[in-house]
Formats: sequence, structure tokens, C-alpha cells
Amino acid sequence: MKATALSALGRRTTPPPISWLMALVLARPKLVSLAAGFTDDATLPVTETRRLLGRLLARRTTGQPALQYGSTPGFPALRRLTAARLCAQDAATGEGRVSEPAYDPEALVITHGSQQLLYLVCEVLCDPGDVVLVEDPTYFVFLGILQSHGVEARDVALTPDGADPDRLDAVLSRLRREGRLPRVKLFYLVGYHQNPTGTTTTLARKAALLDVLRHYERPAGHPIYLLEDAAYRELRFAGPDTASALAVPGGAGRVIYAGTYSKPFATGVRVGFGVLPEPLRRAVLCAKGNHDFGTSSLGQHLLAAALESGVYDRHVARLRTRYAAKAGWMTAALRRHFPAHVSWTEPRGGLYVWARLPRGVRTGPRSALFRRALAADVLYVPGRLCYAPDPTRRAPDHEMRLSFGHASERAIRTGVARLGQVLAEVCG
Amino acid sequence: MKATALSALGRRTTPPPISWLMALVLARPKLVSLAAGFTDDATLPVTETRRLLGRLLARRTTGQPALQYGSTPGFPALRRLTAARLCAQDAATGEGRVSEPAYDPEALVITHGSQQLLYLVCEVLCDPGDVVLVEDPTYFVFLGILQSHGVEARDVALTPDGADPDRLDAVLSRLRREGRLPRVKLFYLVGYHQNPTGTTTTLARKAALLDVLRHYERPAGHPIYLLEDAAYRELRFAGPDTASALAVPGGAGRVIYAGTYSKPFATGVRVGFGVLPEPLRRAVLCAKGNHDFGTSSLGQHLLAAALESGVYDRHVARLRTRYAAKAGWMTAALRRHFPAHVSWTEPRGGLYVWARLPRGVRTGPRSALFRRALAADVLYVPGRLCYAPDPTRRAPDHEMRLSFGHASERAIRTGVARLGQVLAEVCG
Repeated sequence: MKATALSALGRRTTPPPISWLMALVLARPKLVSLAAGFTDDATLPVTETRRLLGRLLARRTTGQPALQYGSTPGFPALRRLTAARLCAQDAATGEGRVSEPAYDPEALVITHGSQQLLYLVCEVLCDPGDVVLVEDPTYFVFLGILQSHGVEARDVALTPDGADPDRLDAVLSRLRREGRLPRVKLFYLVGYHQNPTGTTTTLARKAALLDVLRHYERPAGHPIYLLEDAAYRELRFAGPDTASALAVPGGAGRVIYAGTYSKPFATGVRVGFGVLPEPLRRAVLCAKGNHDFGTSSLGQHLLAAALESGVYDRHVARLRTRYAAKAGWMTAALRRHFPAHVSWTEPRGGLYVWARLPRGVRTGPRSALFRRALAADVLYVPGRLCYAPDPTRRAPDHEMRLSFGHASERAIRTGVARLGQVLAEVCG
Repeated sequence: MKATALSALGRRTTPPPISWLMALVLARPKLVSLAAGFTDDATLPVTETRRLLGRLLARRTTGQPALQYGSTPGFPALRRLTAARLCAQDAATGEGRVSEPAYDPEALVITHGSQQLLYLVCEVLCDPGDVVLVEDPTYFVFLGILQSHGVEARDVALTPDGADPDRLDAVLSRLRREGRLPRVKLFYLVGYHQNPTGTTTTLARKAALLDVLRHYERPAGHPIYLLEDAAYRELRFAGPDTASALAVPGGAGRVIYAGTYSKPFATGVRVGFGVLPEPLRRAVLCAKGNHDFGTSSLGQHLLAAALESGVYDRHVARLRTRYAAKAGWMTAALRRHFPAHVSWTEPRGGLYVWARLPRGVRTGPRSALFRRALAADVLYVPGRLCYAPDPTRRAPDHEMRLSFGHASERAIRTGVARLGQVLAEVCG
């Protein structure tokens, strides 16, 4: 007799690739982790949250709805504030066309973090054997969702402006030749300060990518969506903002926008959101009805109060200053401690520096570098974990993701110094 | 070209059967709803939550972890408190055998409401074409999950002590004859003050049901789990508590226990939990990693503080008194306004009265009764929505679920009076 009879999904679903990294951290308290995507502890809005919740719960009229079930799409006030904020953000860039219905609160669904939105979208769109296009490299937890659903990831090379439309065209063209175009459901793009590379996709590039996708829709027989994950948009600390794919003229009906209040406000509150075209929004909503029939009201009412009172905006401004400083400490340490043949791009937002070593130097979990780093009590995310398991190419294995999100100033300096020493030893 | 190419799951997933009922409520403010499973507004712990969160957020050492990401299985302190409470509850009944590892915090996963646990269990266990056994009638949102996953529900008749083991045996025996036993994954049971009938399953009955399930495991080729949904356990206001299926001697390794803090504390906080045997716990955890990598820390830390400080226990005691009163108002009104040929069982907990009309009187959404009730501005849940779509029998259509959870004393009296009048008209 079997130990248990898991479903196909249950059998396919594996622990996230960094769960063992996080277990290492717990097991070795002296380890400096530059691996996890946690946010900065010191700037968590403890006092602000106390004040907002204190006010919210001071009266039964506002306190009761925060403690009672809400509706599956989410708290109407939060949806209104979110849609208005998104619209204002896109409009402020002066790019693209900011018009309804993309910014209609009715197109919005509040989720238990934006991760849940990514999951729901994949779940209602993808069957085993389907194909999802991703940036190369990309957010590894999204790759886990695809793997869990038996979906094949095909990757599109990144350029400094975002994914390369010519590569996208080549990938789709190849899928057409393979007769697999009807299985292509969406292109997943981390639009702002991408995890892991820090790349921000320009609006022109988003428009070009949407054009390519649309070109293949007829032979596919159905829409091919652009899923824009904007998880790091609010964490921009240099350069101007860029309009979202929602603002691409003619993009309406094809763009799914995933946003979050976790990283810019409090990761422990888990409130994200999605803007979805019909009939996808309805399908996601039905599935969410089965998942949990609605995100925690307490978190939603807290975020609505933060947005309405201006606390949120002031907090995000503080956060940006803080991450700018942390990114600065990290890149200064990199310049000081890393060999000259390691390259990286100065981050303009987000939580990560993506360091490229010479091609010959492996960074993977079994590499000498990784093991030595661990022995020196410093942890990074091996770059290869961020690459889709594409059988048509060998995943690069000479990069590392370094996070300045959670680590303190001291940990950043110590961690990079240790890594630098290990690199010097390994690279000779 | 198709409007969109949903997955098989996306196509199967339908809006919950009462979403249109809830839409009716929003559209008609004068409507008295005895339909929704919302909890009592007046007893929501607004002041208590304010005080607990105020304390939690008064210091950065306790405030930061409440606003930072946690781990996928959940906040260790909450898991410890939950396991200890469950163990104490079962031990206090004096029934069964209360022993490790069923009450080990390590067997526990904190979820975004217990609904998420139900979803995750179905997701990692069930493929399309699989079979899940349910009580007849049962919790309709669970039926929605099954439908969404293409799983067939087979129903097991209820007796006053819980599902009938002889019927369970007959159903499994028939599935064996059909060669479908390998597709049977679990039996879903709402163990306490069942939604919708109010039935509580005795421990002896749970043991008998587990015995029957185990009898069919060898021909099935794998474990057949008992999923005990204890959503209403804390809302008991009459009679003694009963031990959970975890306390059935020899039941270890086969019982999944789904509990929640939503209904007994605050539905808006969405913190539930599951006790799962291995290797199921691990599979659920991997899937949850993809869903959301962990339940909101804020909610978890709030609940841990409520449990630790005794606030939770005092609140539950108050809640029980309140629901006892509300149930009393409802049954008093039923006795006064309902025709003599309508029967119901006096509730001993939970949120519902299950009223049985004479077989000839239909209560379904298209029945004269339902339409007249709506015209008289009163809403109930038609009983047939709680029956699995079993092709081997015609679902009963002469019952109604009346909730005293959310309605005020006045709404309960007015609603029942209106329904009584409609019933008198329709039944003649």
C-alpha cells in the first residue's frame, strides 16, 4: 500500500528552492544571510500601525467591519483607493494612456499577498502541458507555481530595458512550429526592479512585447496575457517611475497587473491585489471563493486607513531613503571587497543586487564557492535557482542574488567582505 | 477566437451557490437575511483586539515580528498554543486516547482561515475523477471545492450521532464493485454542530467511521483519510464537548483536523489551522508555499496574544452565552410562527437551525416558497444547496437553513415571523 495517494499536483509540488537556505539560517545563528527576500525590520511601521489600528478599533462602527467577514473581491474602500493610486502613479509618469476600464476598482481583486494572485491566475489559466513565458532569469517562486501545475516555462532573454521582443518572437515562432501555440497562456514579467536582476521594463518595451503577443493570438486561438508583477514598484529609490503595462494603448483586455502592499508597508500583513480583464477576473474570483472567500478584513482595513490618512505615502518615502542607503552600503562593499571581474548593475529600487561572476566560476548550491561561503558563514541565492528549467539551453551558473532588504548595515558589510574573501580564494 | 482559454479547473469553477443570495442582500437593504454564515457583530472583540494589538505594537521587539514575513507552517508560538489547547480540549472530554504525535505543534499548519486548509487538502490529494465522501447534507462551499477539482462527491446519510457507518460501508462497497475504490481519497465530516444540520458526531461514531474506511484501504491501495472540519466546535452552548477524531485510538495517521479562530474570535482575521499526518502535512506545506508562503503574521500574533492572555477563552465564553440566547430567540419564534408540521432540532451550538418542511413543500431557489419569502423581504438558504449532486439519488428539496449568527434579535423575530406567514400561505 502506498504511503499516500497524492494528486498529480501534490506529487509535482516541491518545497521552494530556498526553503533549505532558510533552514540553514535558522540552524546557524551566526550566519549572515544575504539570501532571503525579507524586508527591512527597522523600518517596519510598528508605531504607525499601532496608531491606525488604535483609531480603527476605537469605535465599533469602524472596528466591527475590520473584524467581520468581507466579500471575496475585497474591501470596497481599499479597492477604490488602490485603483485611484495606481491611476495616479501611471498618470504621473506622463507615459502611455491612462484610461478606464483598466483603473476601475471593479477590475480589482484584493488577495492574500500578490503571491496569491499569481497562483490564482496560473490555476485558472493553465493546465498541465501548457506553456508560460518568463523572463530569463525570473522570480523563482513563480517557477515553483508553474512546476506545481505541470506547466512548461519558456524563457525570454533580458536586456537592460526588459525582455527582448525579438527573443519573445523567436520563442513564440518556435512554439508555433511545434504546434504548441494553443498551449501558450501568458507571459510573466516582473516589471519593476526585477527579482533577481533589478531590471525595470520601459513602457515602450512593454508595448512591444504586447504587440508580439497579440501577433500570435490568432494562431493560438485565444488571448495570450501579459502578467505584470509590480511587487517592487513602490521600492524605487532612483530614477523616474515608469507607467505600468495597463497604460499601453491598446493593451486593455490583455494585461494582468499584480501589485502588493506587503513589501512597501508590512510583509506580515499580506495584502496584495490584482487588476484583471474579464472574463479572467470572474474566474479568479470564483477560485478565490473556494480558497478563502476573501482576504483578511483586518489587513485590508489597516491598509485603507494607511492610504487614506497619508501614512502609507510617508512610510513609502521613508522606506525609499532607507533602501537607497542599504543599496549604497552593499555596492560600496562590493566595490571594496569583490574582485574586479565581478560585475553588477547599480540598483535603482527593489531589494537585490545581481552579481555576475566570470562564466567559469560556478555559484550553484554544490559549487566550491557556495560551500566555502557557507563555511565562512555567509549565504547568497545561487543565480541558477532563478532560471527556468528550459531544456533548450543550459542555465547559467555564475551569478548570485544578494539581498540588502533584511540585513543590517553591519551584516551587509560583513557578509560582502566574507564573500569577497571567498571569491578571491576561489577565483585565485 | 475564444474570449479566454481557461484551464479545466478554471472552467469547472463556478461562483459559490450563495453568491447570488448575498447579492440579493446588498441590493435590497430592507431584506432580513437568515441566510449568510456571518457571525454576530455585537460580540466581535473590538475592544479586546485594540488592547492586544496596542500591547503587541507598543514595543518593536514584539511589533516587528507581527509585521514581518513569518514561515509557511506558521508562527511557532501560535502552533504551540493551538496544539496545547486542542490537546486540553480533547483530554477534558475524558473520551478516547489523547496522545502524541497527533497533538504535536509540528503536525500543525496555520492557514488563511480553515477554508484554505480544506482547499489545500483537496488540491494535494484529489485529481479529476477522484471520489470524496461527504455527509448528506454538507457544507456547500466544500462541495464547490470538489466541483472545481472535478471530484465526484458521494454522500453518506446522517443520523443524530453523525454519518451512518452502514451507509458509508454500502457506499464504499458499491465503489469497490464499480472498480473505483482506488479513486477514493477521503471522507469529509463536519464534526461539531454541523453546517447545515447542527449534528454533532460522537467519538464512538468517528471510531466506527474510521474502522469502515480502514477496511477499504487495502483494496484502495492507499490511505483513505477522515477530514474532520471542526469549524463550529468552539461555538457549543449546550451539552458536553466531544473528543475530536484525533483521539480515536488507532486513528493516528488517518485523521486530518481542520480548526479555526475565525468564527470563535473574529471572522475578519482569517486564521485557521490544520493537523495533518505525514506525508500529507509536507505536501500541504509545499502547496501553501506556492499559494502565499505563510498566513498573515499580524493575525497570527494577535491570536497568539489572545490565547496566551486568556482573552480568547473569556471571549469564547461570552460568545457562547450570546449564541445560546440567539438560538433561543430563533427557536421561540419558530415555535410561535411556524406551522406544526415543520420540524427542527434544538441547536446545541453553531450558527444554524435546519428546518424540515413536509416533503411536498419545495424550498428551492425557484420554488413558490422561496419567491414569496423574497417578496416578503426574508431570505433563507434553500436546503438543496447543501446536497451533493449525487446522480444516484434525488436531492431533498424541502428543507431550509436558518442562521441566527449575524441577524439581530429583532431581525431573527421579524424574519421568522415573515417566513411563518409565507409558509402558512404556501402550505395552506
